Amino acid sequence: MFTFEILKNDESTKARLGKMTTAHGEVETPAFMPVATHATVKSMTSHEIQDMGFQMLIANAYHLYLRPGHKVIERQGGLHKFMSWNHPITTDSGGYQVLSLSKTRKIKSDGILFRSHLDGSEHFFTPSKCIEIQESLGVDIMMCLDECPPYPSTKEYMEKSIELTTSWAKLCKESKTRADNALFGIVQGGVFKELREKSATQLMEIDFDGYALGGLGIGEESEKTYEITESTLNLLPADKPRYLMGLGKPHDIVTAVSMGVDMFDCVIPTRNARNGTLFTSEGKLVIKNAQFAEDQRPIDEGCECYTCRNFSRAYLRHLYIAKETLVLRLLTLHNLYYYAELMREIRSSIKRGDFPNYISRVQSIGGK
Amino acid sequence: MFTFEILKNDESTKARLGKMTTAHGEVETPAFMPVATHATVKSMTSHEIQDMGFQMLIANAYHLYLRPGHKVIERQGGLHKFMSWNHPITTDSGGYQVLSLSKTRKIKSDGILFRSHLDGSEHFFTPSKCIEIQESLGVDIMMCLDECPPYPSTKEYMEKSIELTTSWAKLCKESKTRADNALFGIVQGGVFKELREKSATQLMEIDFDGYALGGLGIGEESEKTYEITESTLNLLPADKPRYLMGLGKPHDIVTAVSMGVDMFDCVIPTRNARNGTLFTSEGKLVIKNAQFAEDQRPIDEGCECYTCRNFSRAYLRHLYIAKETLVLRLLTLHNLYYYAELMREIRSSIKRGDFPNYISRVQSIGGK
Repeated sequence: MFTFEILKNDESTKARLGKMTTAHGEVETPAFMPVATHATVKSMTSHEIQDMGFQMLIANAYHLYLRPGHKVIERQGGLHKFMSWNHPITTDSGGYQVLSLSKTRKIKSDGILFRSHLDGSEHFFTPSKCIEIQESLGVDIMMCLDECPPYPSTKEYMEKSIELTTSWAKLCKESKTRADNALFGIVQGGVFKELREKSATQLMEIDFDGYALGGLGIGEESEKTYEITESTLNLLPADKPRYLMGLGKPHDIVTAVSMGVDMFDCVIPTRNARNGTLFTSEGKLVIKNAQFAEDQRPIDEGCECYTCRNFSRAYLRHLYIAKETLVLRLLTLHNLYYYAELMREIRSSIKRGDFPNYISRVQSIGGK
Repeated sequence: MFTFEILKNDESTKARLGKMTTAHGEVETPAFMPVATHATVKSMTSHEIQDMGFQMLIANAYHLYLRPGHKVIERQGGLHKFMSWNHPITTDSGGYQVLSLSKTRKIKSDGILFRSHLDGSEHFFTPSKCIEIQESLGVDIMMCLDECPPYPSTKEYMEKSIELTTSWAKLCKESKTRADNALFGIVQGGVFKELREKSATQLMEIDFDGYALGGLGIGEESEKTYEITESTLNLLPADKPRYLMGLGKPHDIVTAVSMGVDMFDCVIPTRNARNGTLFTSEGKLVIKNAQFAEDQRPIDEGCECYTCRNFSRAYLRHLYIAKETLVLRLLTLHNLYYYAELMREIRSSIKRGDFPNYISRVQSIGGK
C-alpha cells in the first residue's frame, strides 16, 4: 500500500504539508531521510534515528546488492528487520553509484555492465534486476534505474540519455511484482529545461507513485539548480510526492520546499559531523578549532539533543582531537537532530501559515 | 570521604562482598571498572555505561595530563562533569603508561623524565605532580606513582625498584591535599614472593585507603600470576579494598575474587569487541567468520543487552565487514554487558553462598 495525501497548501509559496502512508507506517512531509547506505546511518542506531523523530530512511540498492547481497537480506526477513528499523525505507536504485563508483562500466540499451568497486567482480544491472533487488530488500519506496550523466554533459548526450532513462523506467514499472510498495520515476535532463520537461512528461505517461528530480547538485551553479527544480516541479502532478535527490543544505531545503518538494535525502548532516563541522542556530561550528578548547557551552545553546544536553564543546573537541570514535556518534546525533528540528519547523510553520518567515530565518544563517 | 565495608565473607573461598562509599556514590564490590583512558569508554556514552550497571570507571592521569591537560579539565569543573559521569572514578597514576608509551624516559630517584608519545615534548612526573594531576581531575580513587618494571626483570633490579616505589608512595601520601578522595598504594615486586611481601609491608606502614597489585599479567605464566596474587593478598589488611590492576579475563576475575580481590579493570572486553571477538555464555565468538553471514540469532541467545535484543549475527557481521563504526558500539556494548552480568553474578552468588559453583561455571567456558 502507498498513499499520499496533501493536508495543506501554503498560501504564499508552493510548499505543501502532506502525509505518505506505507506498509511500514506514515511519513509526514516535507520529510528528510537520513542516509543509511549500508543499512546503517553511520555511527547511529535505528532507535536513535527514530527517537529524533525521523520517519523514513534511505538505503542503497547498489551497495546492499554487492554486500551483503539482497538475497541474504531477504532471507533475514528483509531490510527493516535486518537493521531493526520498523518504519518506511526508500532505496536509491544504485544507478548513480554504479556510474560514480565502479571503475569500468558500460552503458548498454538494456542496462549497465560494471565491475564492483569492492572486488572487481563483473555485474549487469538491468531495470528488472534493479526492481528485483529492491523488492528482495522489501522497501517501501523503490527508485527506477536511471542514467545520471555527469555535469557538464552536452545537450546531445543528455537527449539520448533521457530516452534511455525513460525506457528503463518503463521496464522497471513492468518488472514490479509487489503491491505493497511504491515506485518512483526519476526525472533527468541535466540543466536543460526542455529536456527536463520531456523527461517529466514521458515519466508521467508511464505513471509512477511519485517523481524524483535526479542529477542536480552535481556541480552546476546553485541558481541553475533552483531554476531547474522550480520549472520541473511545475510540470509534475500535484497529488504525487516529489523528491529532490541528494540535495540538502538547510537553505536548499527550505527553498526547495517553497517550490513544492516533499522529500529530501543528503549526506551533508552525517558527513559534516564526521568531519567535525556542526550546524547551529548561529551558523557553522568547526569543533576542532582551538577556540573551543575550554568552551563549556554545548554546541548550540538552544539545542535539546542528547549531545547538547550532556557535553561541552571542550569535551567534544578533546574527543575529536584524540580521535575517539564516541565523537562520531555525538556529532552525528547533533547534526541529524538539527535536521529533524528543521523539518519539524518547516512543517509546523506551513501549518501555522508562517512558512515565509521561517525561510528567511534559515536563509539568514545559511551563509555563516 | 571514602569508606569500605565488608558485607559478607564467603564461607568456602576468600571472596568478599563489599561496598565502597565515595563522594560520588557507592560501588558494590567485587567491581569491574570499564577503561575510559581518554575520558571515554571507547565508543560508549557514560549513560550507556551507567545503564549497564557499572558504578565506577577508570581513567588515566598520564593521558589526560598530556591531552587535554588536567588543568583544562579542572577548569571545566572536573573529570566527572567533563565526561558527564556522575559516579565514582579511579585514575591510574600513569606510571605504567609513562614507562610503556614514551619513547625516551629516565627513571630518577625523584620521578620520571619522559617525552610525550604525542608530540615529543619533555615532562617530569614526580609523586607530587602525579597527585596534583589526579586532584585536579577530582577523582575518587587516586593511585600512587609506581615503577612497573617489565617482565622479566632481575631480582636485583626489582629490589631497587620496590624501594623507589615505596619512597614515591610516601611522597604521594604527603602530597595529598584533598580529603574527599582516596589514595591507593601499588604493591610491586614482580614474580618474587619475598619482594612482594616487602613491598606490601612497606606500603602498609605508610597506610593507604586501599592496596593494588601492579605489574601482573605482563607476560609471566598465569600460574605465577595466581600464586603471587594469592600470597600478596594474604598479607594485606582485610578491611581495605584490594585492586588487581589490568587483569581481567572472566576466569581470571572469578579466580582472583576467590582469593579476595575487590576491584578490577581491564581493556579486554572493549578491545576484543573492537577486534570483533565477543564473549558469550558458550565461549568466544568471532563475528567476522563466514559461518555467521546468514545467522539470524543474536550474539548470545541468553543475553539481554541492547545489541542482542535488536540485532542478528548476520547484521553485525555485515557491519563489521563493511567497516561501519556502528559495529564498534554494538559489540563493545555487548562485551561490557557480559562483564556487568559477570560481576552481578559474582556478587549475587557470594550473597547466596553459591560462589564456588559459579566459579566452575565461568571456568568451564573460560578456555573456549
